[in-house]
Amino acid sequence: MSADTNNAPDSAAQAAKAILARLYTPILTELKQVEEMYRTELSSDDPYIANLLEYIEDYSGKKLRPALLLLAGKACGTVGRDHIILGVVAEMLHTATLVHDDILDDALLRRKRASINALAGNEVSVLLGDHIFSHAFEISLECTTPVGAREFSRAMARTCFGEIMQVHNRNNFELSEAKYFEIIEGKTAELYATSAMLGAHYSGADEKTCRAFYDYGMNLGRAFQIMDDLLDLLGEESLVGKTLGSDVEKGKPTLPLIHHLTHVNEAGRAQALKAAAEGKRAELMELLHQTGSFKYAAARANAFVSAAKKGLDVLPGGDMRDLLYEVAEFVLSREL
Amino acid sequence: MSADTNNAPDSAAQAAKAILARLYTPILTELKQVEEMYRTELSSDDPYIANLLEYIEDYSGKKLRPALLLLAGKACGTVGRDHIILGVVAEMLHTATLVHDDILDDALLRRKRASINALAGNEVSVLLGDHIFSHAFEISLECTTPVGAREFSRAMARTCFGEIMQVHNRNNFELSEAKYFEIIEGKTAELYATSAMLGAHYSGADEKTCRAFYDYGMNLGRAFQIMDDLLDLLGEESLVGKTLGSDVEKGKPTLPLIHHLTHVNEAGRAQALKAAAEGKRAELMELLHQTGSFKYAAARANAFVSAAKKGLDVLPGGDMRDLLYEVAEFVLSREL
Repeated sequence: MSADTNNAPDSAAQAAKAILARLYTPILTELKQVEEMYRTELSSDDPYIANLLEYIEDYSGKKLRPALLLLAGKACGTVGRDHIILGVVAEMLHTATLVHDDILDDALLRRKRASINALAGNEVSVLLGDHIFSHAFEISLECTTPVGAREFSRAMARTCFGEIMQVHNRNNFELSEAKYFEIIEGKTAELYATSAMLGAHYSGADEKTCRAFYDYGMNLGRAFQIMDDLLDLLGEESLVGKTLGSDVEKGKPTLPLIHHLTHVNEAGRAQALKAAAEGKRAELMELLHQTGSFKYAAARANAFVSAAKKGLDVLPGGDMRDLLYEVAEFVLSREL
Repeated sequence: MSADTNNAPDSAAQAAKAILARLYTPILTELKQVEEMYRTELSSDDPYIANLLEYIEDYSGKKLRPALLLLAGKACGTVGRDHIILGVVAEMLHTATLVHDDILDDALLRRKRASINALAGNEVSVLLGDHIFSHAFEISLECTTPVGAREFSRAMARTCFGEIMQVHNRNNFELSEAKYFEIIEGKTAELYATSAMLGAHYSGADEKTCRAFYDYGMNLGRAFQIMDDLLDLLGEESLVGKTLGSDVEKGKPTLPLIHHLTHVNEAGRAQALKAAAEGKRAELMELLHQTGSFKYAAARANAFVSAAKKGLDVLPGGDMRDLLYEVAEFVLSREL
């Protein structure tokens, strides 16, 4: 780590931004349209509500979900108004979950600004999230067919189930890897999968191709969440721009920890859980290193990215497929 | 009040139930179908989630919204599968708002049982409400046309805005009557209006009739909320089966209070607000009686019920219209 650690996060973030800017090149115009429509749709005649909606525009960050939807569309044919609408829907649904997540996490910061619940309280956050959900469903019906509305509402219902299971398994350090994956497939990967699939669908892709894109997004989402787990353990607060009470401190079993706990004996388990309970981060990190648990998690993320790429065999070779390979690889490069 | 006050609430509730049972006669079969589908749709493979969903089935009470939808449908023609689906959607959306309302209110009881947030915590309540919203939208798309999905998502977006405005105006005892109505039309009446309108629409009613039913539901909703305000001030905890911290104590300006505050001088305002702030309920009640504020609110509720009935002139006379008159009047009889 360089002596000038304060600058490191910014330059890492800038590097990521630069990569994304390049990856988004084929969909630049469309992404701009998504951003414009997103802004227009998050508005109200009531000055107080208008102000809140304006504030949370900043919740929208890398726009990975709309980008995935647009890139999948581009790879399969022509991108049209349905893609723009559903790009907005994907981003709004994601924003609504962030607004509600902040209540769950009691987060004070979001993207280095006060979170909406810190600003306006939990009640308003619940209701604002509800409004954004409802309005997202409303505009999804502006598409030429109801497929997008149907798939996104199904996806969101599953996302919530994944999140509930996560809350229910807090402090459950017996959590199996299988259940861990059930949770992250719901809470994180489903929305990526559905975005990618709908992008293909609305460009007229056949069912097999749509399914391939669904799997692509699902694998990307799995890899993304595992990297998030790693980031939470290995990263720094200043790096990720939100209050980072570590997952472990919050009793959230992550993949490296689950791996570790299933690869030590009783005494080893007790030692790790004690270190976690007492917030002895350095000790816990050392233990996880010893069982190769970070390496294991990184390897799993890698494997999901490979599977994501492999699934795209269904596409003809060319620039767009190469670019989707790079998008998958980008997930692994996340500011670690 | 009778000496045997403990029995009074139950008999009042039973009387209301008996009236509703009679009013629901023409739609008994369909309402049963709604109930069955509602139960089927609120399920999960995960045992923990299945248990939560089963628990909140009890949140569904009088089924006023699906009943309104079915009765409107019956009044305009034949009731079919679309009505059943949308009846379920109306009830699920209402349930989701109740689940989230309990977080906002910090309610410990709902229908005399522990509320879901008391049972499973705020986090699970937020997510469970989100799931029910999403799933309601999902099944609304099973209708033969997307009109129901579109109207209910629009209605929910407005409902949330109404609720946000209410939170924002807490402790704002300068609230105008106009803003009060804007709030209750959103948070309460919109879902009634949309339910009634969709019932008519899916029975093939023309636009004018659909609009009349929308207005009917809106007026019913306004009256319903005003009666709720009155109930909160004049009722008793045991009567309504939920933790009843009075609206006034929570800083929620209700119609009788707004009326009172605009019909006294500065000293009168100060006196009323002091009584409210100090929780001197008896004194406050006496003050409101002096300005005829309860009478005023009751008269407004009455006028909305009359307007609701008048709007049904668009229908041919007959049993169904008479029954819809009675439904409107029922709102005024609520367990006061």
